[in-house]
Formats: sequence, structure tokens, C-alpha cells
Amino acid sequence: MFQENLKRLVAETEGGVAGLLMGFDGIAVEQYTAPDGGVDIQTVGMEFSFILTQVRKAAEILEVGAVQEIAIRTAALTMLIRVVSPEYFVALAIRPDGNFGKGRYLLRLVAPKLYAEIV
Amino acid sequence: MFQENLKRLVAETEGGVAGLLMGFDGIAVEQYTAPDGGVDIQTVGMEFSFILTQVRKAAEILEVGAVQEIAIRTAALTMLIRVVSPEYFVALAIRPDGNFGKGRYLLRLVAPKLYAEIV
Repeated sequence: MFQENLKRLVAETEGGVAGLLMGFDGIAVEQYTAPDGGVDIQTVGMEFSFILTQVRKAAEILEVGAVQEIAIRTAALTMLIRVVSPEYFVALAIRPDGNFGKGRYLLRLVAPKLYAEIV
Repeated sequence: MFQENLKRLVAETEGGVAGLLMGFDGIAVEQYTAPDGGVDIQTVGMEFSFILTQVRKAAEILEVGAVQEIAIRTAALTMLIRVVSPEYFVALAIRPDGNFGKGRYLLRLVAPKLYAEIV
């Protein structure tokens, strides 16, 4: 189920702290935070669901096709987001020294599995 | 100067189509589009300057430190953005099959150079 996939995503990404499946409306479906995570992934996700919606609007205006992935790196946290369906996205929060490439790879693997469960 | 650095950024990234140095207010300082680019980088940059501002606000609310990098991947275009200073950012547009990692690496190299020129 969702929880298993999110846990795997976080556990197998070096520096992974939390994973989240959320609607574009900012309502979380499921989440998982590593024992030493220290991140309120739901609040982070809610902020980014708003940004994702803005990015989708921009992509529509610019006619560059559907939004697939977003990565945002700040001094203290990296957020990787992958669109699962027109209604849902999956997000992975990792520490700045975490494995960005591995997280991105695992998000690509897990997105179709989440999609298969959610529809 | 700016133009040289932007040209190098685009030319040395496989699949690079355009580079842009822009203020967070959406006003471009300099831009470079590859001969076969086919991207209106200024319009793209203006849309993303708005998004960047929203991301900075979210990062402030979430207390996750300063925003450093953003990557947005759509079906037809990948946008890589690196914050140069509190007022400016540099953006690189690449084709979906372009070299994401190389572009990100070159943005990191070029950002301090642009910063040294702009302040």
C-alpha cells in the first residue's frame, strides 16, 4: 500500500527524511517520516502543493506540456516532487547532503505504483 | 561578461536551448538563445520569476533556509534555476533529452561568476 512505498522511498534514499502522497488541493493521502526525520512533511507538502499548482498554470501558459517533476533545494532541505496523476503528487524530502539522484530515480519507480493504487 | 557566460552555459550543456540572467522582479539582465533554440526564454523566465518568489515565501514560512536551486521538468522543456543573489537568478532551459546533471553542474560554476559581475 501507499505507506510501504513511501517508507521504501525514504529508507532507500541516503539522507531521506520524509515521503508524502498528496492531492493538488493540499490534502495528504498518506505520509511517512523517518524516525529521526524532524520534518513536518504535511506542512511542507501543503506549501508546495500551492507552488505546484502555480507551476502547472505557468506550464499551460507557456505551452511546454505537462509538469512531471520539480526539485527545490534550500539550505536545509531538498524537496523532490513527482506528479502521479492530474490530481496527486508524491514528494520526498531529503537532507542537503542526501542522494538527490537516487531519490529522483526511486520517485520515478514508485510513481506508477502509487498511480496504480490510487485510481 | 554576462553574454559569454550564458552562451557557454547553453553551448556546453547537451540539449541546452537558452540561458537567462533575470531579476526576481521578472526583468531580464541578459539572455542567450541557441541558434536552433526555439524558446522565448524571456517569457519563460518571467513566469518562473513569479514562481521563484512564491518558493522563497514558502521556504521562509517553513524555515528551511535560503532557496538555492529549482528544477522543473515538463514534457517539452526542463528549466534549471540557480539563485545568484537575493535580487537575481540564472536559468537554463534544456530539452527533455538534454543533460540535466551537466546543466546543473555548469549553473553552479557560472553563478559565482555572474554574482561577481552583477554586484
